[in-house]
Amino acid sequence: MADEALFQFLHSELIQYIYKSGGSGETENGKRVTKLETMGFRVGQGLIERFTKETPRFKDELDIMKFICKDFWTCLFKKQIDNLRTNHQGIYVLQDNSFRLLSQLSAGKQYLEHAPKYLAFTCGLVRGGLSDLGVKSVVTAEVAGMPACKTLWQGCS
Amino acid sequence: MADEALFQFLHSELIQYIYKSGGSGETENGKRVTKLETMGFRVGQGLIERFTKETPRFKDELDIMKFICKDFWTCLFKKQIDNLRTNHQGIYVLQDNSFRLLSQLSAGKQYLEHAPKYLAFTCGLVRGGLSDLGVKSVVTAEVAGMPACKTLWQGCS
Repeated sequence: MADEALFQFLHSELIQYIYKSGGSGETENGKRVTKLETMGFRVGQGLIERFTKETPRFKDELDIMKFICKDFWTCLFKKQIDNLRTNHQGIYVLQDNSFRLLSQLSAGKQYLEHAPKYLAFTCGLVRGGLSDLGVKSVVTAEVAGMPACKTLWQGCS
Repeated sequence: MADEALFQFLHSELIQYIYKSGGSGETENGKRVTKLETMGFRVGQGLIERFTKETPRFKDELDIMKFICKDFWTCLFKKQIDNLRTNHQGIYVLQDNSFRLLSQLSAGKQYLEHAPKYLAFTCGLVRGGLSDLGVKSVVTAEVAGMPACKTLWQGCS
């Protein structure tokens, strides 16, 4: 439990640090989200490199996605993705009903506007992980009510 | 292993981010080290709060220090402190012969000048943890050769 908390606390500190400086306009906020996403991307790449050292090759995109939903998500957040849907045309929707990095915020809609900064790093993690597995993608996230989170992954390859 | 790597990678990203901006003078570097230390302090406080919820009260300072060397260090770095010495007058020296956050750097003396930025957050972690246990302290670290690290903890209470 405590080492999971270590990541959560450090993640919060990083967000606070990035959001402390500079202006508060939409452009500024966009830049911050991009920074967090880029950091997540690099970390995701590094993690997948270590994590898949002993893993046999993946059969196809669906196989990769199952790995992300089960093994990768469990490694990151100690739980699997709760629901996975796809349109079989390269779009995948991963739903986590109790996303760990939102669990520090109050449940409900009160702090909904703060959600994007808590999601950006993880979007980057997924995009970086996928990139290292040879899948170029766009990863976005949405929250309708805390602490549930949907991650939309759109393949670009 | 992978969740430990998650913390290590995020820690590296944070350092890179903090060191990317601003000047390169000694004052600037000092400020950066302080920032990292302060972040570590807050994370250390949070961790100890969670970690000691179920722990019985500590008998004395030595008891606290044993907890830091064993349980806290293991939670952070998956290993115990290798050596602990004290002058019995409030100074404790904790030695880790293979400090995880230095293991990414090459062994030897080549990158010794970069060591302080990889130690500051952890000094803060220890100081924050101790502070939450009622011990005011000054925590410094020194490296004679990678990846060994000595943490000097001087009680101030």
